[in-house]
Amino acid sequence: MNRVKAKIITLILLFTFSASYAKQHPGLFLTSQGVKEIKKSLGKYPAFDSSYLELKNIADAALRSEITVPIPKDGGGGYTHEKHKNNYYEMNAAGTLYQITGNKKYAQFVRNMLMEYASMYPTLGLHPDVKSATPGKLFWQALNESVWLVHTANAYDCVYNYINETDRSYIEKNLFYPMAEFISNGNPNNYEVFNKMHNHGTWATAAVGMIGYAMDDKNLVDMALYGSQKDGKTGFIRQLDVLFSPDGYFTEGPYYQRYAIWPFMTFAQVIENQQPELKIFGYRDGILNKAVNTLVQCAYNGEIFYLNDALSKTYKTQEIIYAVDIAFENDPSNVSLLDIARQQESFIVSDAGIATAKALKKYKLKPTYLGSLVLSDGQNGDEGGIAILRSGNTDRQTCLTFKATSHGLSHGHYDKLSISLYDNGNSILPDYGAVRFLNIEPKYGGHYTQENYSWAMQTIAHNTVTVDETSHFGANIKVSSDFHSDFQYSDISNPELQIVSGVENNAYKGVKMQRTTALLKNESFEFPVAIDIFRVNSDSVHTLDFPFYYKGQMVSTNFNIQKNVTELKTLGTKNGYQHLWLEATGKTDKPNACFTWVNGNRFYSITTLSNSDSEFKMARVGANDPNFNLRYEPCFMIRQPNVDNYTFVSVIEPHGLYDLSKEVTVNYQTSIANVEMILDNHDYTVVKITLRDNKVYLLATVNNNFSKKATRTIDANGETITFTGNYYFKEIKN
Amino acid sequence: MNRVKAKIITLILLFTFSASYAKQHPGLFLTSQGVKEIKKSLGKYPAFDSSYLELKNIADAALRSEITVPIPKDGGGGYTHEKHKNNYYEMNAAGTLYQITGNKKYAQFVRNMLMEYASMYPTLGLHPDVKSATPGKLFWQALNESVWLVHTANAYDCVYNYINETDRSYIEKNLFYPMAEFISNGNPNNYEVFNKMHNHGTWATAAVGMIGYAMDDKNLVDMALYGSQKDGKTGFIRQLDVLFSPDGYFTEGPYYQRYAIWPFMTFAQVIENQQPELKIFGYRDGILNKAVNTLVQCAYNGEIFYLNDALSKTYKTQEIIYAVDIAFENDPSNVSLLDIARQQESFIVSDAGIATAKALKKYKLKPTYLGSLVLSDGQNGDEGGIAILRSGNTDRQTCLTFKATSHGLSHGHYDKLSISLYDNGNSILPDYGAVRFLNIEPKYGGHYTQENYSWAMQTIAHNTVTVDETSHFGANIKVSSDFHSDFQYSDISNPELQIVSGVENNAYKGVKMQRTTALLKNESFEFPVAIDIFRVNSDSVHTLDFPFYYKGQMVSTNFNIQKNVTELKTLGTKNGYQHLWLEATGKTDKPNACFTWVNGNRFYSITTLSNSDSEFKMARVGANDPNFNLRYEPCFMIRQPNVDNYTFVSVIEPHGLYDLSKEVTVNYQTSIANVEMILDNHDYTVVKITLRDNKVYLLATVNNNFSKKATRTIDANGETITFTGNYYFKEIKN
Repeated sequence: MNRVKAKIITLILLFTFSASYAKQHPGLFLTSQGVKEIKKSLGKYPAFDSSYLELKNIADAALRSEITVPIPKDGGGGYTHEKHKNNYYEMNAAGTLYQITGNKKYAQFVRNMLMEYASMYPTLGLHPDVKSATPGKLFWQALNESVWLVHTANAYDCVYNYINETDRSYIEKNLFYPMAEFISNGNPNNYEVFNKMHNHGTWATAAVGMIGYAMDDKNLVDMALYGSQKDGKTGFIRQLDVLFSPDGYFTEGPYYQRYAIWPFMTFAQVIENQQPELKIFGYRDGILNKAVNTLVQCAYNGEIFYLNDALSKTYKTQEIIYAVDIAFENDPSNVSLLDIARQQESFIVSDAGIATAKALKKYKLKPTYLGSLVLSDGQNGDEGGIAILRSGNTDRQTCLTFKATSHGLSHGHYDKLSISLYDNGNSILPDYGAVRFLNIEPKYGGHYTQENYSWAMQTIAHNTVTVDETSHFGANIKVSSDFHSDFQYSDISNPELQIVSGVENNAYKGVKMQRTTALLKNESFEFPVAIDIFRVNSDSVHTLDFPFYYKGQMVSTNFNIQKNVTELKTLGTKNGYQHLWLEATGKTDKPNACFTWVNGNRFYSITTLSNSDSEFKMARVGANDPNFNLRYEPCFMIRQPNVDNYTFVSVIEPHGLYDLSKEVTVNYQTSIANVEMILDNHDYTVVKITLRDNKVYLLATVNNNFSKKATRTIDANGETITFTGNYYFKEIKN
Repeated sequence: MNRVKAKIITLILLFTFSASYAKQHPGLFLTSQGVKEIKKSLGKYPAFDSSYLELKNIADAALRSEITVPIPKDGGGGYTHEKHKNNYYEMNAAGTLYQITGNKKYAQFVRNMLMEYASMYPTLGLHPDVKSATPGKLFWQALNESVWLVHTANAYDCVYNYINETDRSYIEKNLFYPMAEFISNGNPNNYEVFNKMHNHGTWATAAVGMIGYAMDDKNLVDMALYGSQKDGKTGFIRQLDVLFSPDGYFTEGPYYQRYAIWPFMTFAQVIENQQPELKIFGYRDGILNKAVNTLVQCAYNGEIFYLNDALSKTYKTQEIIYAVDIAFENDPSNVSLLDIARQQESFIVSDAGIATAKALKKYKLKPTYLGSLVLSDGQNGDEGGIAILRSGNTDRQTCLTFKATSHGLSHGHYDKLSISLYDNGNSILPDYGAVRFLNIEPKYGGHYTQENYSWAMQTIAHNTVTVDETSHFGANIKVSSDFHSDFQYSDISNPELQIVSGVENNAYKGVKMQRTTALLKNESFEFPVAIDIFRVNSDSVHTLDFPFYYKGQMVSTNFNIQKNVTELKTLGTKNGYQHLWLEATGKTDKPNACFTWVNGNRFYSITTLSNSDSEFKMARVGANDPNFNLRYEPCFMIRQPNVDNYTFVSVIEPHGLYDLSKEVTVNYQTSIANVEMILDNHDYTVVKITLRDNKVYLLATVNNNFSKKATRTIDANGETITFTGNYYFKEIKN
């Protein structure tokens, strides 16, 4: 902390003593140097050309239409909402086009629209569609007002010199100053948001800071960088300290990291252009570029992971295009970003975009695929994190995510120690993500729907253990935010066996949960296989529910299931259970239950320990969903009733081939013959996996006293195992 | 019929007087000329090279493994089934490789495997997994035995000269002759199948004919071409007369057309090579190439339509690769096939494949997209048919299928006048297709499951009207096969309004059903819009159910729906209704009910006539599905109780944009303000469609006395309409 404080003071001093900002326009996001570079380069880089053409089409279409600045009325996805959004895109496009073509019609358009906004803005009260604690004026939430201003500040900078001083003064006085004041200090809670460590705060400070630079207003810039009190305790710089872990993981999770990265990188680029002496991209060991790297790592085949509140987002979203281009321009040694740019096939029309397009052509990279990673969460990197285990170097690679983070602010889910699995280009064991139809007005105004809390956030919606049909921390964000999971150990150094182990002590009073998951790739298996050990320990008796949400079509079980064929009822009445239809139940007297399904052209089997108390349930999302907001996805669930100490052991195996095109089927059965737990105590768990070809593997994990250097000797069912470190894996003779 | 008979006699005469077949090997499917061509061409055509490499990999992998010819035991997807299938692929690959490389190891492999088969085959009884009325010996059904022989005949021809006479004689005596005898005449029903007008008959005759040519056995060839009695009343040639309509539509539907086209084209190529004087590709005005053209037309973006029993199949299946290459080689003027070959990215390693690959390189075609088509069904083209209405010339084109065919043999569904809709690259109003997990052994041995009849074939599973909760023809194939629907008229000449009208008089006693569907593309709508008029007329009172199965997520209705949120029951107890969960019901006092959903990045709305009796139901497939065989897909259903005469009028509109990547939403509401039926009688139905921008369109359809030339004058609600032909469509003043 002291180091961070010292840094902030240095920055404030630098800022105070620095000369006034460059007065040159454009110089905010796009610079005159960038304009020259783009003019010179058009026609040389096809993907950049098409990004430019896309922007030009937006601007030209805007110029052909009448300017409409409607009185705000509709929520997300509604007419006035979309119109004001379109307007900022159009101004941004026209401003940029003016710089590149020199054609005044574009500047005139921006000026005219700004004049309209300036004449309307002072007349506006809060937005009439009240669904947010922080309503905007143009939009239902102040957040969108900030986004509007980030784009418009850029447009204003581009046409600044074109607009005469009288008009500028009118626009600044009636529009930009009131808006900056509203965003930073308006009713009812904007002051709080502006000074909050949250992505909304980043948008707010970026907006105020950018318009501050554009209008050469030191006060606004000062507030943006160091908070309303200008003491560095809040503001953009402080956000860089707090919102990212030292590994560049954003505490709200990848989906919001994607969203926050936009103002972070955009405003940072502006700071770099206006005050290069602040060396913003070097701040905190280059935390911004780390954050971009981490963001692109949190994806499978270019689709961002569904952790916490999340919808479908890919590398091709504009915010990740901004992030990649800006990060690359400010650290051209990071050539791995060029492969992401190649996948994006699109660039920002700015200094950063053209620099990236040029470099990409020069490098002509082969596609690269992401590797494994363990990312810490928390400002100091000591609040758990996420592990990403990957195997394979094609777009069919296997990828397992393991979440052991802090709560993740308001968008966090109660999903401690949850996993997701991707394989063969598909989502196999998904995380549901969020219940929201972004910008679809009839779907609760495009907001998160009620089911986001009642279903998506609840523990039972995730691939982890629910105790006594209640969610972690009683689904209370205040309690959950006081705690975080932890990694016990991890090792991703050996591609044959990657392993991560996490612990959660606080989700349920008196219950300790430990999960150890390994991704195994060796000659016994066609594809990488996950071995999953989930220990629950308590002094009292509980019922444990452990679902695996799967994508695909059920193929078989190795036990009888009774399906409810003429009537469906819900699995429970609250904590998310009310949203699950109970489709089938089964029990088995075998030592393992096996469930097989097919997804794409591959089979998947979960083979899991079973005893006479184990109940197996098939359930499906969709109950208590009066407005058809849910996706009706299935799960296979293990219920273990009345246990104080219980350990789930499962092997999740992709296998075989289902080629409907050639009508070829291979290996539709798992190669696992038996899963056995031969030791499970406070110190160790040892699992024996027998294959149908009679090969036998032992996996041992340490449950306590973790140390990479300790040497352990275990007597497991007559077998003496000696190893150094936290785990042991070996083929043994049967 | 006389013409056809005369043709057959000519063919028989030609055959009788022709010289014996060419004795050259290879000369069956691959010829020595083709071998030369391929040798010369390797390295020049990358897609052909990779097809060759794929074949080589199969052959090389086979040579590295031990030859295994297991005693038949398992059903489809099981070990012995897949092994015998693999074996014929391997022999086929090795045979071809021997010809191209001259390397004797490939020939030795084929010889050795054939010797093993020859030693086992005489010991075999019928296959132990009895699920078919026509069991095989190597496989659970004789059909697969024929497929085995089609491939193996080719392999045998390729290595014929390599195998010494003693071995050949052993193989022919113990394997090929007994197998040909079994396929054409074995227990219990093979004689019947061999002489049947059905795709199984085509495989059987192709198999026997090909091995006949390979062994230079006139008797077998004779039987294959002209039936067991050699009188031309059955056999391959007769199948060409009966199984295709004059438009080349295969009566079982596109899915089985795809399957049948393989032996049709393969055997035809063999006939062409062995007896060019038969001019098989010219037979019946070139019916074989017509059939290939028709097959590729029955697809959306390369995926074959789901009509009757159907699973997912694309242009990339090997059978369509065979069909396209062979059709092109035998009619190189049909360059439109080259665009299909381009999409396939794969070729047969044969004379036809290399010819197509060479031509494709020469032409360098731009992608083309399919147009509209009306295809007749029935041997004489007088048993109804299917209409395919398409709009647009990109992979986002809109495509509506309209089915008014005969039953379609054993794979037909009770789905008279059913439609499907594709748009924007996606399936929008799907046809369920078949319930089958082909080659997945645990799924009822890979056969059609019980639900294929109880659900997929039933009328309620389709986008058409069910009367009194019973299926067309009481779901009795014998009755259904006696009748067919008919087109009343169609006009696909005007891209602004394409229209088709069909009638079904026999599906329900005393009930006449007429459906008229138009695909409209004009400046009032962003995308093509379907207008759908479904008339039901009867002397007695009935309850009508009219579902629209949709893909995507429900967005909104313009009326209140009550969703069953804590308990689900089935919609009915039989005729497919037992498979539907009733999710929600609603009524409206508005004149129109509107249902909107989102699919991909586009919205879709159905606006349909409503009155105080209309009930709207949301249902979902999945009830009474003890083995998880169904896909749990939703529908929006109109129930009209207690009507004798009733006409459904619906407009199905794709609209707007839902871009989650750019977070942009446009036009999430239908542009239809009102749908009104202003006249509906025995002669005419007139529909008035009012848009939200106050434009008004009239669509009138003739219901009786169809004539393209007749001039009609209608007094519709004060409006006098005069037109010539069967329909009228015009914008009118409001």
